[in-house]
Amino acid sequence: MSLVRVHNLAISLDGFGAGADQSLASPFGHAGMRLMEWFLPTRTFGAQQGDLTREPTPDDAFARRSFEGIGAEIMGAGKFGPPGWQDDPDWQGWWGDEPPFHSPVVVLTHRPRAPLTLGETTFHFLDAAPARALDVARELAGEADVRLGGGPTSVRSFLAEDLVDLLHVVVVPIVLGRGSQLWWGLEGLEQRFDSEAVSTPSGVTHVTFTRRPR
Amino acid sequence: MSLVRVHNLAISLDGFGAGADQSLASPFGHAGMRLMEWFLPTRTFGAQQGDLTREPTPDDAFARRSFEGIGAEIMGAGKFGPPGWQDDPDWQGWWGDEPPFHSPVVVLTHRPRAPLTLGETTFHFLDAAPARALDVARELAGEADVRLGGGPTSVRSFLAEDLVDLLHVVVVPIVLGRGSQLWWGLEGLEQRFDSEAVSTPSGVTHVTFTRRPR
Repeated sequence: MSLVRVHNLAISLDGFGAGADQSLASPFGHAGMRLMEWFLPTRTFGAQQGDLTREPTPDDAFARRSFEGIGAEIMGAGKFGPPGWQDDPDWQGWWGDEPPFHSPVVVLTHRPRAPLTLGETTFHFLDAAPARALDVARELAGEADVRLGGGPTSVRSFLAEDLVDLLHVVVVPIVLGRGSQLWWGLEGLEQRFDSEAVSTPSGVTHVTFTRRPR
Repeated sequence: MSLVRVHNLAISLDGFGAGADQSLASPFGHAGMRLMEWFLPTRTFGAQQGDLTREPTPDDAFARRSFEGIGAEIMGAGKFGPPGWQDDPDWQGWWGDEPPFHSPVVVLTHRPRAPLTLGETTFHFLDAAPARALDVARELAGEADVRLGGGPTSVRSFLAEDLVDLLHVVVVPIVLGRGSQLWWGLEGLEQRFDSEAVSTPSGVTHVTFTRRPR
């Protein structure tokens, strides 16, 4: 069976994976770029921007795994657009004509619309609980794995139902204070996983949880 | 001026530095030993138990700093005893006849009592806000530094008033879900500090915040 994987989910020391007050003008809310600063210098991000000259780094060794062996992504509504994007029939996501997914994407929303194809990516809008969303994504992914692309609220709902095989979080040494919590309701999560922590020269710590055999 | 230092403050991924439901029978509450497992195998803890045979380890390199150059400790009421210890005039703390502090300790409590000397440690009970408690502790410490010994609620109150020069937390890869939060109300704390993260083979990550020059 293909795996369900979360990669590059950056969180603050107090467990927030996204800032408060997100909007069209401020996609990351009060967090700004603080949760992403570790990612921007990576070779993986550079390649997404057409820059193929960067050297690999310890952070990149983690970052690039997110793009290996993935056949489909599931994302929460909060990742596809700012609050209220469902009211705008012309909203096509944040990523322009060539989104960086290169695979089908299932967008979870209570107000689904017709599929949208941009470049190599087709967005499928679905109003479904985690288990059924996963069935749909697995069908789209074929033999490959499914990535849970975030945000933290969406990932949390899959963790709560024990549907996640690999969870890679990046602990950024900041205190956000508010925003979307990854850990709420997940007391004792570690009992189902093995974990490994690696800090890197950028100052973040990569914590990888791997689901123990059932 | 002597420094105010916090060492070996273990926290969960969701920022809890102590468990819920602490009592005489369950001093660490629902957290049990989970926040301390990294510390128990250290040479530093061994020496406290009279075992001088242990080798130093990466965790010990951090653990032992807590005992270097300290002239006094400040602790919150919740560290000195279980909830309600103030009602028991015979309560003398958790540590028996030879507490491991070897220096004066200021115990913050709204119900102070007469000083208590056990072995090399004298406990001074004080009903005071952080700044004044620090004045008292500095006086007791002489030229040496003051350690904030915890718990997390007490440390948080000193951080909120910007009285801390060094904060060493140990991020344990568990989700406690409830208990005493270190980070509440400290949004943006990192702006006053430089930070450094080091993960070790035990699976924890040592994050050290050093106050920037004022």
